[in-house]
Amino acid sequence: MRYEKLKGFIAAPFTCFHEDGTLNLNPIHAYADYLKQNGASGAFILGTTGEGMSVTTAERKKVAEEWMKSADPDFKIIVHAGSSGLHDSRELAAHAQEIGAYAVGCIAPNFFKPATVDDLVAYASDVAAACPDLPFYYYHIPSMSGVYLSMPEFLQKASGRIPNLAGIKFTHHDLMEFNQCTMTAGGRYDLLHGYDEILICGLSLGVQAAVGSTYNYFLPVYLKLREAFDAGDLETARRMQQESVRLVGVLLKYRGGIACGKAIMNLVGIPCGPCRLPIRSLDTEEMERLNRDLQTMNFFELTGQTIVNSPTQAN
Amino acid sequence: MRYEKLKGFIAAPFTCFHEDGTLNLNPIHAYADYLKQNGASGAFILGTTGEGMSVTTAERKKVAEEWMKSADPDFKIIVHAGSSGLHDSRELAAHAQEIGAYAVGCIAPNFFKPATVDDLVAYASDVAAACPDLPFYYYHIPSMSGVYLSMPEFLQKASGRIPNLAGIKFTHHDLMEFNQCTMTAGGRYDLLHGYDEILICGLSLGVQAAVGSTYNYFLPVYLKLREAFDAGDLETARRMQQESVRLVGVLLKYRGGIACGKAIMNLVGIPCGPCRLPIRSLDTEEMERLNRDLQTMNFFELTGQTIVNSPTQAN
Amino acid sequence: MRYEKLKGFIAAPFTCFHEDGTLNLNPIHAYADYLKQNGASGAFILGTTGEGMSVTTAERKKVAEEWMKSADPDFKIIVHAGSSGLHDSRELAAHAQEIGAYAVGCIAPNFFKPATVDDLVAYASDVAAACPDLPFYYYHIPSMSGVYLSMPEFLQKASGRIPNLAGIKFTHHDLMEFNQCTMTAGGRYDLLHGYDEILICGLSLGVQAAVGSTYNYFLPVYLKLREAFDAGDLETARRMQQESVRLVGVLLKYRGGIACGKAIMNLVGIPCGPCRLPIRSLDTEEMERLNRDLQTMNFFELTGQTIVNSPTQAN
Amino acid sequence: MRYEKLKGFIAAPFTCFHEDGTLNLNPIHAYADYLKQNGASGAFILGTTGEGMSVTTAERKKVAEEWMKSADPDFKIIVHAGSSGLHDSRELAAHAQEIGAYAVGCIAPNFFKPATVDDLVAYASDVAAACPDLPFYYYHIPSMSGVYLSMPEFLQKASGRIPNLAGIKFTHHDLMEFNQCTMTAGGRYDLLHGYDEILICGLSLGVQAAVGSTYNYFLPVYLKLREAFDAGDLETARRMQQESVRLVGVLLKYRGGIACGKAIMNLVGIPCGPCRLPIRSLDTEEMERLNRDLQTMNFFELTGQTIVNSPTQAN
Repeated sequence: MRYEKLKGFIAAPFTCFHEDGTLNLNPIHAYADYLKQNGASGAFILGTTGEGMSVTTAERKKVAEEWMKSADPDFKIIVHAGSSGLHDSRELAAHAQEIGAYAVGCIAPNFFKPATVDDLVAYASDVAAACPDLPFYYYHIPSMSGVYLSMPEFLQKASGRIPNLAGIKFTHHDLMEFNQCTMTAGGRYDLLHGYDEILICGLSLGVQAAVGSTYNYFLPVYLKLREAFDAGDLETARRMQQESVRLVGVLLKYRGGIACGKAIMNLVGIPCGPCRLPIRSLDTEEMERLNRDLQTMNFFELTGQTIVNSPTQAN
Repeated sequence: MRYEKLKGFIAAPFTCFHEDGTLNLNPIHAYADYLKQNGASGAFILGTTGEGMSVTTAERKKVAEEWMKSADPDFKIIVHAGSSGLHDSRELAAHAQEIGAYAVGCIAPNFFKPATVDDLVAYASDVAAACPDLPFYYYHIPSMSGVYLSMPEFLQKASGRIPNLAGIKFTHHDLMEFNQCTMTAGGRYDLLHGYDEILICGLSLGVQAAVGSTYNYFLPVYLKLREAFDAGDLETARRMQQESVRLVGVLLKYRGGIACGKAIMNLVGIPCGPCRLPIRSLDTEEMERLNRDLQTMNFFELTGQTIVNSPTQAN
Repeated sequence: MRYEKLKGFIAAPFTCFHEDGTLNLNPIHAYADYLKQNGASGAFILGTTGEGMSVTTAERKKVAEEWMKSADPDFKIIVHAGSSGLHDSRELAAHAQEIGAYAVGCIAPNFFKPATVDDLVAYASDVAAACPDLPFYYYHIPSMSGVYLSMPEFLQKASGRIPNLAGIKFTHHDLMEFNQCTMTAGGRYDLLHGYDEILICGLSLGVQAAVGSTYNYFLPVYLKLREAFDAGDLETARRMQQESVRLVGVLLKYRGGIACGKAIMNLVGIPCGPCRLPIRSLDTEEMERLNRDLQTMNFFELTGQTIVNSPTQAN
Repeated sequence: MRYEKLKGFIAAPFTCFHEDGTLNLNPIHAYADYLKQNGASGAFILGTTGEGMSVTTAERKKVAEEWMKSADPDFKIIVHAGSSGLHDSRELAAHAQEIGAYAVGCIAPNFFKPATVDDLVAYASDVAAACPDLPFYYYHIPSMSGVYLSMPEFLQKASGRIPNLAGIKFTHHDLMEFNQCTMTAGGRYDLLHGYDEILICGLSLGVQAAVGSTYNYFLPVYLKLREAFDAGDLETARRMQQESVRLVGVLLKYRGGIACGKAIMNLVGIPCGPCRLPIRSLDTEEMERLNRDLQTMNFFELTGQTIVNSPTQAN
């Protein structure tokens, strides 16, 4: 099969929890509206940012069902089905097809890691076969999965074995490998860019679609970046990328994109709630420092957002 | 709480699957009898060897229930509840207590890894609180989990926060750290040795109990090793350890302790079946080569076992 | 001090050896002419590509002296002084200043690795102080050195302590960190791009100068790439980058940029000779296969070069 | 060739520097006497503890010559010739033979790392050929060298190619691999134990000789450990090992065995002086804390030593 390639910015939503850590489906509708209004072209749910590996299979189905209520042709829902075990992933992939998701994504299992590309193809093939009518994206994020296998080799070997393979969500620093993937199999596979903080590098390589966590709440900056890049205004594009780099610098001060990203969402009015252990949520003192750091970098001006919940209440 | 320390050899059983990959509970009763006859003092189920991370939560409960039918004071069932997510692990720990398991083990989550010892203590504490009446063992196996946090520090910090902490299943090459753990908190914690191929080193450090995958089918050799060691006959103990090293050398030729271990079990008459992907089972040609390698190292003489299923049928 | 930033493509030359492994200074003059004719704006000698760590201190001085004979304002010689030990590096840095080199580069010591940024600053400071009149570039290549310390933090801390610090030769995949470095200390530091195969990504970030090993023999392609990029013709720029990716793909088939790069130089007429162990030189059969691979990717047409030595004689 | 195997405890001496970082040969004679009096059976000079990689080739020759003045049949001098480059190592190996050293040791080059066991054998073979009349020990310490190649395979392949190969100085946590090495080639190779803090594990495997840095100043404890072990008194042996573990725990608080080990030597009267960067020497405040930690663990009673230089003067 040959699928149309994705376009634009696909947010990787956070999964919302109540204060006691139980699942909270209530904010999803407003969350989807917020993303649409900001210009996102879709949502890649329950991946890394969505803490998918910390959410049970039963809960993941509920989350997916809830997001599907906001799906439309201009806001595609891609369901991440990756887990530590084949059977859970097959169940999630089948469910995604059942509820009409646009596509399925799947990370390599990361406790028992595929030892060879052939083993990875065999694994991915078994998951993809559970959602035969949907485009299937392999989710390459070796910094989390520990699976550093060659992606061009994966595409080559998978092309004959996974009929519904659509491409790779590529979240890895090796951009030569990214480029090699775009050159593989006649360029038929869709390569989704996965590092927001170097989007401009991806654009230079011809990227059309990107998936990331800061597209949740910082999208206006990226839209301006891409617009400037497309217009040949590299100075503006670079300046916007530098704003993104500043933002990610702030995230890294507060335990990274999930803990700090959820805190930001709480601040701007989407009640994502706390994280699940082992990710530690920000405490009140950290929320206040974060708020100051965001002010310093002009986060609110850059994105046209205001603080909805005060830092002391936001968490 | 202070728990009695474990003694002897605790096998880490394989989880049995049918040829199509579905769960097979049938062999468990005979499997338990086989282990008892060979001299095992217990079973640590659904850990690494048991492919726990590839088995769904629902399946894991069934496996645990089945093993419990063979539990007795001289054959203790320890249920591994570790998974990639806190909620699944809490559910499994609670279930283990419900069905009367002897103890619960739990690995660190390995997709979202605890960043600090405090985060690990917080996580382990939440799981242990779901089985408050059972001894709780943290399962330290950084080569698989990628969590290399300090275990002496973990014990120190956990001692005030996890009342039912019994100790650590320690599967790591750093034996100085192992020794430090035995010296922590007045020596109150139970350290289970986790590398069969260097058991003699553990004995030199005073180890009383060991958990491992080769105790499934090579136990006579280890019993002789320990007996010789206790009698001060180091020559014999070393010779037995060398047999174990030879065995592990064979395992490594065939994709390691799970794929090859299951193949051996199939040969000697416990139908463990295939592995789940991404672990690739041995094919017929490999089974034949394995059989020859086992003959060469006198596996059958050393363990007093015979081939029950021919290599060509065993898989 | 504030130095003018470098511009253009700086080749990282191979160090020439006789067949018996001893140093060969003879080809250097012709080598420099070849690079100048191809459009290189300088040479970064005795770094990774130059097998600097396999060349003795005495030999390195001779090599540097020989290259200096070809130095001119449009062909700058940067001497890499990094080694495993501070005293050798200080000696080499002082020598570089003595012979009038344009600048000095220095990698972190990689047996005893600096444990903190402060330790790295202290080390680099001691080397830089041995060549106080020359611009000093820290050479960041963690894949080789194993030193993954933060470069923005290094620049910040070094800015007050290393007066002749000019910037960083940055050979690392983390382009966000690269970008952060350009944003540090008011943008005063010169960031030399270090991965030829993703040059276009560097250009998108505003890179003005690049150092690399394929600039030795594949420069016409990169000149075309940059020209197209500067003219806003991204299609051509991307196509050229893909040629570079193809080339690097070939290098990786033959043990990488040093072993295979020297083989290519031998083919096109610069007798670089063999590598020093532990890098294994290509054998005749490999030379022939390499030659065919180069033909297949149109290496000779792309660069306007011809085979000077037949593959069977070239090594 | 077949060499007699080494016996006893071989200290890995520190290299002495003046306060300004220049080489200090003066203390070596007294240092050697100190080691002999403490019961060391030899010295492995200029390895990791000896900061060999931070000492120039010319300096290393002087150090070796000075130590040779104290050599005798009961105090063997093994010269480490490893460096980042083959030619330096060959020169050092040849020099060691020239001055009558007992044996030569050599680590793998760790900037350009041998990619395969064959490459390592080729490299080691070239170094060993420079000292054909001396026993040659490969120095396996992957935590420093980054070279994790299989040692049993190395011995097997090297046995036909390196006639003067005597064995391996094995400083790696994988004791199964250690044991495999003792089982290779009919047990002809000498395996030197390299982790003082788990000596008792080595003894359980039959170790006869050990090389390490704490044998410099903590030898009485290890002599008692071995004596007890040999007498079957495991309780005492374990207690002594625990003292060693406590000591290493202290070292780790002060940047490890080199920085802290030198500080201890300075305290007990062997003026080893500071470390070379990038290793940072202890400052006065740290010296005082170290002294208190040593008092707390009864370091001086255990070793029968007294403080010769006050902590404030010792550094």
